[in-house]
Amino acid sequence: MNQSLAPTIRDLARKAATGALHPLTIVDEVLHRLEHHKANPIFISTVSPEALRQRAEELAALPPETRAALPLYGVPFAVKDNIDVAGMPTTAGCPEFAYTPTKTAFVVERLLAAGAVLVGKCNLDQFATGLTGMRSVYGSPVNPYSADHVSGGSSSGSAVAVACGIVNFSLGTDTAGSGRIPAGFNNIVGYRPSSGLLSASGVVPCARSIDTVSLFGNCTDDVRRVLAVAGGYDEDDPYSIELASRSVPVGAPVFGVLEPQEDYFLGDDYARAAYEHGVTQLQALGYATVAIDYAPFKEISDMTYFGPSMSERTAVLGEFISTHPNATYTAVVRDAIVKAADFSAVDAFAMLHRLKALERQTEGETWSRVDFLCIPTAPTIHTREAVNRDPAWGSTSLGAYTNFASLLGLPAISVPNGFRQDGLPTGIMFVGKRTDDVALLHLAESFAA
Amino acid sequence: MNQSLAPTIRDLARKAATGALHPLTIVDEVLHRLEHHKANPIFISTVSPEALRQRAEELAALPPETRAALPLYGVPFAVKDNIDVAGMPTTAGCPEFAYTPTKTAFVVERLLAAGAVLVGKCNLDQFATGLTGMRSVYGSPVNPYSADHVSGGSSSGSAVAVACGIVNFSLGTDTAGSGRIPAGFNNIVGYRPSSGLLSASGVVPCARSIDTVSLFGNCTDDVRRVLAVAGGYDEDDPYSIELASRSVPVGAPVFGVLEPQEDYFLGDDYARAAYEHGVTQLQALGYATVAIDYAPFKEISDMTYFGPSMSERTAVLGEFISTHPNATYTAVVRDAIVKAADFSAVDAFAMLHRLKALERQTEGETWSRVDFLCIPTAPTIHTREAVNRDPAWGSTSLGAYTNFASLLGLPAISVPNGFRQDGLPTGIMFVGKRTDDVALLHLAESFAA
Repeated sequence: MNQSLAPTIRDLARKAATGALHPLTIVDEVLHRLEHHKANPIFISTVSPEALRQRAEELAALPPETRAALPLYGVPFAVKDNIDVAGMPTTAGCPEFAYTPTKTAFVVERLLAAGAVLVGKCNLDQFATGLTGMRSVYGSPVNPYSADHVSGGSSSGSAVAVACGIVNFSLGTDTAGSGRIPAGFNNIVGYRPSSGLLSASGVVPCARSIDTVSLFGNCTDDVRRVLAVAGGYDEDDPYSIELASRSVPVGAPVFGVLEPQEDYFLGDDYARAAYEHGVTQLQALGYATVAIDYAPFKEISDMTYFGPSMSERTAVLGEFISTHPNATYTAVVRDAIVKAADFSAVDAFAMLHRLKALERQTEGETWSRVDFLCIPTAPTIHTREAVNRDPAWGSTSLGAYTNFASLLGLPAISVPNGFRQDGLPTGIMFVGKRTDDVALLHLAESFAA
Repeated sequence: MNQSLAPTIRDLARKAATGALHPLTIVDEVLHRLEHHKANPIFISTVSPEALRQRAEELAALPPETRAALPLYGVPFAVKDNIDVAGMPTTAGCPEFAYTPTKTAFVVERLLAAGAVLVGKCNLDQFATGLTGMRSVYGSPVNPYSADHVSGGSSSGSAVAVACGIVNFSLGTDTAGSGRIPAGFNNIVGYRPSSGLLSASGVVPCARSIDTVSLFGNCTDDVRRVLAVAGGYDEDDPYSIELASRSVPVGAPVFGVLEPQEDYFLGDDYARAAYEHGVTQLQALGYATVAIDYAPFKEISDMTYFGPSMSERTAVLGEFISTHPNATYTAVVRDAIVKAADFSAVDAFAMLHRLKALERQTEGETWSRVDFLCIPTAPTIHTREAVNRDPAWGSTSLGAYTNFASLLGLPAISVPNGFRQDGLPTGIMFVGKRTDDVALLHLAESFAA
């Protein structure tokens, strides 16, 4: 999509609105690419060619002023299959869990109203639980940069759909890193907004208090345009918030970076070198950096999988699993959710108290000194074979840099950080203070530029 | 204290600072009143007469400019015995739990630095768990208005110390209503600030995420002066917040009041009549009132005692109880804390999700239409005999109007609402939006005027 039709959402929407590119041409190119990638299990369901062409005709029939006023006019997108679209099944990665909603999710409604063209619903790690992309009973999406390596997850299909150029942007979800890990592995942008900024109405809950819809795109500007359309207060989502007004660009931002001796790269020297190169790039842009103590962030990240935080998923999914013992499960997902039923309420409150104390520690030690963190998106990228050997570790080990932002509700964006010495793509992540999303996106764009 | 020395903190501090009233005279009057009330188990420990006189001498030795600059100069106060004072034991109502801290609690330090005179540490329902005042192994404080009726709790001694005129103000804590229920039963003001406004450093935790220090005084202005001194951000308390700047008086406030048919007065027609009279008074002051649906607030209130919320106390106190099986317990408190260990983490997260949904419901249905609630402080006042018959119900039944503010972190203040037809005092409570404390106190003062 990028090269042949238009490289950015802005250009594509403009070309389509002015008539330089007919929506039918866009849709036909999408169908061509769907066909080209059909062996890759990127989608769980797709909109029929007839319906896609009908959508294109409807858009084309709009008066020119209306077309020009639609910020996503003619732009193809996909959504993770834990997000409702009326009339299409929502599986959350489990066939027996599937239902067909009559109402489209709040954020998807907004995107459609802005002229975007829905292409399909993307494969995911079952119940959005996992960071590898190898936990789906619908097959595991192939990373276009390396068939031997994982795509990342849980928003695997959403990321690969963008990376393969089938759509210009996609929606994922991010409860621990699911919206950022696969971005880093697929050389695209993955943005997890501050909790509550994007409505979760019509999204299958995972761990409700830390879930968020996330956005994938080719560049930060694309993501920003999608956020501007999709964001907004939703009174039906108890966790929804208004975007705070202080979210303005920071004058001379200071970045917290890892201590040089930080060794959580799982022995992957390519990953370390890529990160260090990214920091050098940041400094070359004239930004100040200071080393931070990552230990409290790591302790928070470890809470995601190794403790009662997992029970929040059981609160939502435990009943389905116990009443559907013979459904088609990814064993490692099912077992993790079932096992978390063993934690007590005392464990849960003790965890929440510890989380609050660590949050305050990071505010005092780190956020008082820096405006953003610049950290790796992931400590390494696993081969499929390594994940098959140890599916639990394969996932948990990848969340070392992403999980804490979810538990603290912080905005974070993974942007492409070039290619490692072994030719694999790698991401670098910027994390902001809560609701500093506008400043964060502004900054991320300057890095990519 | 009120009549003989000075009716308000402002007057007392001014008289003392200008030399019209020597701190030694104040202290001697306090000692006289302590002696007069010595049969009433208001205190668990008191400052010695020698130390009190020494404090008075030290204050008297300050230069006049310094004295005039101290807002609480010479003002006697007491603190609930779950709040640390260096060198005095902190019992939390359990002798075997007691320890002697070397550091004074953050808020107490501020009060002392402002010239206040600490008199002693007050009796409380054990581990601050209970609303009756009859759950202490140190005896149960006598309500000065009726020996047959409960004092209210858990901050029983703190409220009675003010009601008996021993001190001008006192600190309690409020996790479900402990800072408001005894205010209503003792004809004084009881204020629960927005969660985080008063530091909890040096306070024995109860349910940490909803605990707060609370303030008792004879009038709203007294409470406001104490808040101005004691409040402030404390980096050592993870739940501490800054007072938000929007906390300004509301122009023409609208009050949410109970539907006329609301029947949660436990059959107490005197309580109902008193509340209705209070609403009439409010309307006579020119304020607009609208009836609200109290059901979601009641459902939140019921969560406090009937569900995993209690496990938050177990997270803090469960280990002590299990390792000290033979300590001196109030059985109903111990049993409630131990029993709450049975809830699962799934129960806890499901409760937190439901709480969030109910919070949003109250925002949409009620807070969008009103600035404050005006509701009873308590549905009734129990006799001691009734509570002895059923200690669990005796406590839980009283929290119907107080608990929800704690779970939602809202500011609330109980002010005297005159006397019922049977001669007992009764309180009426105003509840504000989160961090609307300044506006709330301003309003409460206008009601009392």
